[in-house]
Amino acid sequence: MSEISINYLTKNVKLIFEKDIINAEWRFLDRSRHYFVITDTNIANLYEDILSLIPNLKSILVIKAGEKAKSIHVYKKIIKSLIKFKISKDDTLIVFGGGVINDLASFVASTYLGGIDYVLIPTTLVAQVSAALSERCYLDIDVKNAISVISHPLAIIIDPTILKTLSQSEFEDGIAEIIKYGMIKDKTILQEISDHKITINTINFYYLLEKCINIKIALETNPKDKNLANFGLLYGKIIRQLSTNELSYGRLLAIGMYYELQNEELRFELKSILKLYNLDTYLPKWNINYQKYIAKQNTSYETIEIKSMGNAELVFHQN
Amino acid sequence: MSEISINYLTKNVKLIFEKDIINAEWRFLDRSRHYFVITDTNIANLYEDILSLIPNLKSILVIKAGEKAKSIHVYKKIIKSLIKFKISKDDTLIVFGGGVINDLASFVASTYLGGIDYVLIPTTLVAQVSAALSERCYLDIDVKNAISVISHPLAIIIDPTILKTLSQSEFEDGIAEIIKYGMIKDKTILQEISDHKITINTINFYYLLEKCINIKIALETNPKDKNLANFGLLYGKIIRQLSTNELSYGRLLAIGMYYELQNEELRFELKSILKLYNLDTYLPKWNINYQKYIAKQNTSYETIEIKSMGNAELVFHQN
Repeated sequence: MSEISINYLTKNVKLIFEKDIINAEWRFLDRSRHYFVITDTNIANLYEDILSLIPNLKSILVIKAGEKAKSIHVYKKIIKSLIKFKISKDDTLIVFGGGVINDLASFVASTYLGGIDYVLIPTTLVAQVSAALSERCYLDIDVKNAISVISHPLAIIIDPTILKTLSQSEFEDGIAEIIKYGMIKDKTILQEISDHKITINTINFYYLLEKCINIKIALETNPKDKNLANFGLLYGKIIRQLSTNELSYGRLLAIGMYYELQNEELRFELKSILKLYNLDTYLPKWNINYQKYIAKQNTSYETIEIKSMGNAELVFHQN
Repeated sequence: MSEISINYLTKNVKLIFEKDIINAEWRFLDRSRHYFVITDTNIANLYEDILSLIPNLKSILVIKAGEKAKSIHVYKKIIKSLIKFKISKDDTLIVFGGGVINDLASFVASTYLGGIDYVLIPTTLVAQVSAALSERCYLDIDVKNAISVISHPLAIIIDPTILKTLSQSEFEDGIAEIIKYGMIKDKTILQEISDHKITINTINFYYLLEKCINIKIALETNPKDKNLANFGLLYGKIIRQLSTNELSYGRLLAIGMYYELQNEELRFELKSILKLYNLDTYLPKWNINYQKYIAKQNTSYETIEIKSMGNAELVFHQN
């Protein structure tokens, strides 16, 4: 087990990294408080017994799994439930789920009654290495992530054993994020995951997870570096706008990284790693000049240039 | 004209206090930026010509006047409009209205695209001495002020000449707030406004306004004192919950202050001042013990005790 403090600009947040912590009778929770849970239908089924052991449990709100839950409509319904259940500022929310539940429930916690305490327990690889550590939580209105607020939990609990319940495809989504960290900050990550295909049972997996979490924390708490984490997402966003396929975050990121990368040699190297994890780089043959498309939509924007593997630089563009 | 900096915990905000500033061709606005306005139907009619002079004006969103606008429904509609009008992070919002528009538009500005710059121009007396200076903005979901966020404008513009367009009743609502400041912080205010009935044309009115703004800033930036501003609102809230009449903020505050005050002598003094400004202290004869009612709803709460006029103290209650 390790416990560290993440020092965000305006708040310090406790992060606990521990195997099997959620099977240990919720001993990290303060027994003098009351709790309620927000989770989704998939997770609720898998963890029903474990969730029922939470001390002083007022209620469990189970949201239908899927991207659509990140809406103002679902947000409003949750707030109405909290009022109905008389959830007060003395109560603590437990956020138990992947990226969508993380965003939705953090938005609830940071606005309801001006903000209530909450604990984040991310259940997907993407959420564990990225979403849960991000200071911002987002909701969609017409466009993805149209609104957001800064939001800090009481604590973030990373339990890698939870990842055992992930599907292969969900696990690969997380690998895309891990590859991103390798590309922008630490090429040893790329070596580790390309030597042979890793899974959650690989001997060094927990170590890799911890390394990625530390990179994300370093990025998130350093204003100069923060935007490096947007590598792949500029193109990823456009592909999502133009595509009729519903691609997951990890799949978009993989394609985005591949096309944002200008150097042919690095591209080749990236592609072979992505392929190992079934992450496609196929881009539909839209007749589009990406640079022009981005320039048209924004008066100014940043791109992330990969100088060499693990070495990235922000480039500012002004029209 | 005076210009000061309000030093909130996490941000400094410029406050400009100037007569007739909005009639001066918006010279306080940066000409290199683009603007859009959120206002309400009442204000839009009165200030149509002045608003049309705003430089680089992209659009004016006019919201139907009234308490109902502070809803998640109207919030969502505004966000959709901003997306439609392609309002970007480079644009600046001008918030032009009373307390409701102030809350609604500040909530929009602090969440849309993760927060965009905005300038607050409060148009009512309550908003000028209170709402605009508060760090929080609120929306209603089922109950009043169910959700809120902390939000800081680029600048707050206080132009007392705007108050000339207020109705007598709106002006009196603001006086209730001014009386509250007198009760909790500065008894000279009570003397000034009880010697003779003041209006916006009274010789010392601007001075009084500035004094109240300074008291509100001192309260808002001092965590120890901040909650003193809740004087009258604990009872005011209950009265709103139980009443079928739609009472304005100022009317609720007046009744709330009167009944929260325990000292008979001070009560008598307060009542005579309130009466001068048509602020009723009539409380419907509900068969209710307020202290018990509050205790039942909260495990802990604070009351504000007025020791003598201008001298208030927080009292903490634990059940």
